[in-house]
Amino acid sequence: MPAAAGPAVTGDGMRIGSNGDTVTGRECAGREGAVRITALAGGIGGSRFLLGVRAALPDADITVIGNTGDDITLHGLRICPDLDTVMYTLGGGISTERGWGREAETFTVAEELAAYGVGPAWFGLGDRDLATHLVRTRMLDAGYSLTDVTAALCRRWQPGLRLLPMSDDRVETHVVVDTDQGRRAVHFQEWWLGMRAATPAQEIISLGAERARPAPGVLDALADADVVLLPPSNPVVSIGSILAVPGLRAALAATPAPVIGVSPIIGGAPVRGMADACLRAIGVATTAAAVGAHYGARRTPATGEGGGEAGTGETIDGTAGSDAIGGASGAGAGSHGAGGAGAGSHGAGGGTAGADTGGILDGWLVDTADTGAQVPGVTVKARPLLMTDIDATIGIVRAALELAGV
Amino acid sequence: MPAAAGPAVTGDGMRIGSNGDTVTGRECAGREGAVRITALAGGIGGSRFLLGVRAALPDADITVIGNTGDDITLHGLRICPDLDTVMYTLGGGISTERGWGREAETFTVAEELAAYGVGPAWFGLGDRDLATHLVRTRMLDAGYSLTDVTAALCRRWQPGLRLLPMSDDRVETHVVVDTDQGRRAVHFQEWWLGMRAATPAQEIISLGAERARPAPGVLDALADADVVLLPPSNPVVSIGSILAVPGLRAALAATPAPVIGVSPIIGGAPVRGMADACLRAIGVATTAAAVGAHYGARRTPATGEGGGEAGTGETIDGTAGSDAIGGASGAGAGSHGAGGAGAGSHGAGGGTAGADTGGILDGWLVDTADTGAQVPGVTVKARPLLMTDIDATIGIVRAALELAGV
Repeated sequence: MPAAAGPAVTGDGMRIGSNGDTVTGRECAGREGAVRITALAGGIGGSRFLLGVRAALPDADITVIGNTGDDITLHGLRICPDLDTVMYTLGGGISTERGWGREAETFTVAEELAAYGVGPAWFGLGDRDLATHLVRTRMLDAGYSLTDVTAALCRRWQPGLRLLPMSDDRVETHVVVDTDQGRRAVHFQEWWLGMRAATPAQEIISLGAERARPAPGVLDALADADVVLLPPSNPVVSIGSILAVPGLRAALAATPAPVIGVSPIIGGAPVRGMADACLRAIGVATTAAAVGAHYGARRTPATGEGGGEAGTGETIDGTAGSDAIGGASGAGAGSHGAGGAGAGSHGAGGGTAGADTGGILDGWLVDTADTGAQVPGVTVKARPLLMTDIDATIGIVRAALELAGV
Repeated sequence: MPAAAGPAVTGDGMRIGSNGDTVTGRECAGREGAVRITALAGGIGGSRFLLGVRAALPDADITVIGNTGDDITLHGLRICPDLDTVMYTLGGGISTERGWGREAETFTVAEELAAYGVGPAWFGLGDRDLATHLVRTRMLDAGYSLTDVTAALCRRWQPGLRLLPMSDDRVETHVVVDTDQGRRAVHFQEWWLGMRAATPAQEIISLGAERARPAPGVLDALADADVVLLPPSNPVVSIGSILAVPGLRAALAATPAPVIGVSPIIGGAPVRGMADACLRAIGVATTAAAVGAHYGARRTPATGEGGGEAGTGETIDGTAGSDAIGGASGAGAGSHGAGGAGAGSHGAGGGTAGADTGGILDGWLVDTADTGAQVPGVTVKARPLLMTDIDATIGIVRAALELAGV
């Protein structure tokens, strides 16, 4: 087929935005010195939290490492639900009522597919949304990476942040269930949407994760961040899926930035979605404390208030007060924080940072319903966590930044 | 991706209708002895004519050899405009106003693609229509032939006839044009829709035709027909494209069935569309006589009224009168006509059928506006040819069958 005249992204004339083309790219002039926030994110909860991050820090340089474990190929179309939810939400195209998919969506194509007897019926494939998948699929087929494709799609949506897939390699979350036809593995989407997570998950598998490499920019975004945030996304199939990419967990452990998580569990129940069904599958209780402990402390618990020797890692001098947590790490290349390197540690409990433990948290925000929750080695702070509106969300973000000392 | 539960055509459970599954397949019980009509067809004109064929002969066994030269891949979707126009028209899903695409169509996906800067803008890709292309593309990608895919799609539409692509191999009509940027070849659709055929075609090329093979069933449908009809489709890019598939023209020349064409040109202008622009490119005048002569007589002109020796081929004893044309051919395997083998030839002018000439016509219906038009070696009959409604179309079909002696 010959190249068509005119259109920006068609035929041989396909033009793709490199990462540097995005408005929030590191290369943009005038962003030198901006606070660098890196967040891991799933879908709806993560996106709403990111709205608060962007609003709380309009000048910040925000990078989002998006979960791609939910990705699925349907009707030959490559669909990335979480990346799209972030892109649409931050780009102003999300259905505010549903929280996923496009505003003013129609489902004509899906109805026609059903008329052909072509399923599955459980996936809500909207017409507007479908155009995104068509562009993505065509670009992937043409050899572009998911990182490139995501950047190109974001040129339209201008989310005001840099959205990176966790990996350009295919990773798909599958769920092992027992059915009348015996035990089988189904795609996460089939379990989540088709079975509504009612059939107990015997196991949750990150298919392909062991061979996946972090997408370009992902490790740097963690290493160079001033603060790393874990929004209230699903700890298993969103954050957990990202952490399953080899190198991600180590990068979180190694970053000099403090890592602050926000609990998706309030008063023993997920704020939204069916995270409890996922937590059950991995043997974690549906409590803020249990999820915090599942993420784990980056350092062994402090040796005690003011006691012990100083850690070798750099510390960030939080100017916001005593909640600040030292993002201590022996591998830290240097402090990019708002404050300079302090002389003393303001780390958890004021004590000494210990050795790496495989955990990823320095601080953990829980809801006031969970006041008193404790996570060994992690500074826990309670405050209202319901993202009822943008102001509430900004408040949560500010509390997380305060906990980080940013 | 695991196979989804339930749907008929998805994942590993994809079930495809073989040719034998179509309602009008030869294998269907009770169709033994039905009149066998084989028609070549393009899009709109061909489809409307076929409505008349089906209505005029409700018990007939109708096979349509559809043009695939207009096929195009857009947004990664394989689109077969002519096959779909036949399928939608006969299946009751066509937009009666436009003549192509689906009734009650919406264009949401196309608008979204445009918002991404993805073209081309000249192709009217409807949402309902798009579902057909998704199913087709997925099946082709899975390894099914276009013949299989078309049969599967027709299981929904039940067109009441067997629709075959001319070839399972890719053949695409390209048009050479002179532009400001020099001479270049564009896909037929870009020329037809994007340029509205206003830029003169220097050449029309059937790309891939020389390597294409007739689709399964195509040659048999011609060899076993009782009558072969050429609807008033575009003689260059519809019928001409079909004839460009090696073996098709020879099969038309060899079939014992009479071959009757219906002129798409009335009074020196195409009834619909821009066939004149195509005819100009191949140096054929836009007249009924010129198009008839372009198709050419299957036999050399008769030696004269009642004179000469009898041909060696079989003849069909038309019971409808003197307009009947003998589908004479030395290769004829036997007569499948409504009448038995007659003792005398009722061929063109009552004369003797001559040798093969490379032409394909025995009879040629022209409009009364073209009364007096002559095509050497071909019986020409004039009657009103405007398909203003189904009754008018039935009248045209009956006249064609009468000319064939069926």
